[in-house]
Amino acid sequence: MSPRLTIALDAMGGDNAPDIVVEGAALARVRFPDVRFILFGDEKRIAPLVEQHEKLKDSVTIHHTDDAVSSEERPTVALRQGRNSSMQLAINAVNSGEAAGIVSAGNTGALMAMAKVSLKMLPGIDRPAIAAPCPTKVGESVMLDLGANVEGNADNLVQFGMLGAAFARTVFGKEEPTVGLLNVGAEEVKGRDAVRQAAAIFKERKLPFKFHGFVEGDDIGAGTVDVFVVDGFTGNVVLKTLEGTVRLYSEYLRQTFKSSLFAKLSYFLARRALAKMRARIDPRRYNGATFLGLNGVVVKSHGGTDAFGFANAIGVAVDMAANDINEFIMRELAEYGDQEVPQAQVG
Amino acid sequence: MSPRLTIALDAMGGDNAPDIVVEGAALARVRFPDVRFILFGDEKRIAPLVEQHEKLKDSVTIHHTDDAVSSEERPTVALRQGRNSSMQLAINAVNSGEAAGIVSAGNTGALMAMAKVSLKMLPGIDRPAIAAPCPTKVGESVMLDLGANVEGNADNLVQFGMLGAAFARTVFGKEEPTVGLLNVGAEEVKGRDAVRQAAAIFKERKLPFKFHGFVEGDDIGAGTVDVFVVDGFTGNVVLKTLEGTVRLYSEYLRQTFKSSLFAKLSYFLARRALAKMRARIDPRRYNGATFLGLNGVVVKSHGGTDAFGFANAIGVAVDMAANDINEFIMRELAEYGDQEVPQAQVG
Repeated sequence: MSPRLTIALDAMGGDNAPDIVVEGAALARVRFPDVRFILFGDEKRIAPLVEQHEKLKDSVTIHHTDDAVSSEERPTVALRQGRNSSMQLAINAVNSGEAAGIVSAGNTGALMAMAKVSLKMLPGIDRPAIAAPCPTKVGESVMLDLGANVEGNADNLVQFGMLGAAFARTVFGKEEPTVGLLNVGAEEVKGRDAVRQAAAIFKERKLPFKFHGFVEGDDIGAGTVDVFVVDGFTGNVVLKTLEGTVRLYSEYLRQTFKSSLFAKLSYFLARRALAKMRARIDPRRYNGATFLGLNGVVVKSHGGTDAFGFANAIGVAVDMAANDINEFIMRELAEYGDQEVPQAQVG
Repeated sequence: MSPRLTIALDAMGGDNAPDIVVEGAALARVRFPDVRFILFGDEKRIAPLVEQHEKLKDSVTIHHTDDAVSSEERPTVALRQGRNSSMQLAINAVNSGEAAGIVSAGNTGALMAMAKVSLKMLPGIDRPAIAAPCPTKVGESVMLDLGANVEGNADNLVQFGMLGAAFARTVFGKEEPTVGLLNVGAEEVKGRDAVRQAAAIFKERKLPFKFHGFVEGDDIGAGTVDVFVVDGFTGNVVLKTLEGTVRLYSEYLRQTFKSSLFAKLSYFLARRALAKMRARIDPRRYNGATFLGLNGVVVKSHGGTDAFGFANAIGVAVDMAANDINEFIMRELAEYGDQEVPQAQVG
């Protein structure tokens, strides 16, 4: 069943825009035949690309604008001068209800700033978090915050836990997700104050998920929990370390299969199995980070991705919108959110 | 040329002590025939193990003690009650000058606490840092702090840079090492205050290394700089993420080579090349984290390592001691350390 939704696409964002945006939409169209797209950007460049995709034509509307946010633009400048940019207009479409979500491969800082100002935060959430799925030994988990904030307190981490669990429940379909706090050791006495305080809050509250306790960096690959909660500074460095390590290992493997005639023959024999493995760790498969905590579905695609990667980012937006993730988060926050009010006053 | 040094070994620390400690010493003895070892621990258990290694016998002295620090002991308790532990006595041997360095596979927190109290900090260094080499595409780099501190300010990061550069110069033999600060982006405006302030200090000072600027997580695998400076919380999570990702990738590869008859045959053909690759990423090769900034050479081996891994940790201690790393650091700090004193007063 394909959801009936409209997704706004910033057709001018990313290294290979608008080409990969249109091609990505065409790929997503196959997976979600009933989803419609509004492409924001330069009509003269977008229209001929849409023409090349017979089936896409009926699914898209082009909303012309001359203006686009460049990848180097500082967020504050983009916010002030980019009122008519493809990025801002696409966000506006979500704000007005015309679209159920937006996908952009453009400037991350500008997208976050514009989305925060236009869409605002969900009630009960102080700061947004960047969340993305990551591959594990047992499937996939979601990790947040990946860099929306460089500082944060215990309350922020608690809210990230609520947001991440809602993502795991709606998008991954996990009934009772497990949530772990990334720390320097599993023992209660270890770690930063904010992390230890967040753990104490999780332990004393009624929660819509299972709080696992502290987890460490190697628990990510092991998939020990469904949701990894971490401050945005550490999360950003960790995410990029993960990507870099996969690249390093792949490079070592490439060298290995070139190192002798036997090794080359070996590669030839195992090429299908190795292609499957490559697909499993393909970063394009995990493309599409989402800004959780905003009153609207916003998905950021990697700037250098191709059409396949962009289509996957669209898939994240469709999954989130089709599952009404923000409605879900608001209901959960109403039930499980800030519980410092004494129970007697609530009843 | 093998250096003439004595290394103190905590024979009772780690999951497989004293067996792997003695076997590790025997392996290290082959690499460094002139190095002597003092083994601290239960003589009744150690002596029969030493007997098994003909060539080791003349290179070791056993210093008997009944007491040992357990792996679960809290550092404060170990410090109070472990005065006669194998760990503390081995540290004392460094403090008295009897040994040029100590290696322990025991309780990290206890080792750090005891080493700090007994050996004290080098003048000009406020806090120690845990440093370890990590494999990169182009060789190896050193990263610090990996968890000695969970909080820290700009001055700490600057000192870590000095310590890491001294390690790269003496142990790696790099004439003018490059130093990078791990951050969430390469731009100057990004990141935490402490990281940005540390960058500003590096830029304004005369330095015995090249300050590269900010680096990101994926620069670790790429080997963009020789020294990666990071706060201990982030560094610890990053290090364990690296280890976990390598394990995940290896598991995927194992599954790949079992997935079909062709793949199995392929494994057979490439087994030598694959064994070389495994050796390249073997965590035992990178075993041996060092506590930099202390007035004494202290190396922590992974608790679960084997004799090969322990021998590599001994190798790190020998390299550091043979190169007089702490003398080197003190000279550098005297020349390039805190430069807030106006030049006129210095001259």
